[in-house]
Amino acid sequence: MKYTARINIMPLNNLLDPQGKAVKQTLQSLKYSEISDVRIGKHIKLIIDASDEQSAKQIAEEISRKVLTNPVMEYFKINVCKFEVVE
Amino acid sequence: MKYTARINIMPLNNLLDPQGKAVKQTLQSLKYSEISDVRIGKHIKLIIDASDEQSAKQIAEEISRKVLTNPVMEYFKINVCKFEVVE
Repeated sequence: MKYTARINIMPLNNLLDPQGKAVKQTLQSLKYSEISDVRIGKHIKLIIDASDEQSAKQIAEEISRKVLTNPVMEYFKINVCKFEVVE
Repeated sequence: MKYTARINIMPLNNLLDPQGKAVKQTLQSLKYSEISDVRIGKHIKLIIDASDEQSAKQIAEEISRKVLTNPVMEYFKINVCKFEVVE
């Protein structure tokens, strides 16, 4: 069975995020003064073949931890659901 | 009132995603054969000062459309909720 794992990888809250800071300054120069903070990370979508949702989640977590993120600078959150073609 | 807008910006489904393809090949060479597809995009978190959730969503949508995404190559999804300090 196929599952979709959506992983958000963000810079740790106590670290600077130069990309986010640059976008925040751009938005403020464009008069979007409502924006008080911007953080930019990665969104990764994995399609996983697994027997059930629990094991799909385990695989996604292992990959996130071992391959996709740098724990010194980033944290991740995972959301797993059944794969649907139209997304 | 403060709201958190989480925006996922992904490459359009019918476009190639070289970064995702590279990660997929890496995962397969690491024996993660369960992974049948990888797409990589951006995850942006905005903190917005707005009177209510509806107007926060409008601001986030306008910024996504005008500043953050390139509609020729990307699509976006927005999720707005009340701002909480611990995330």
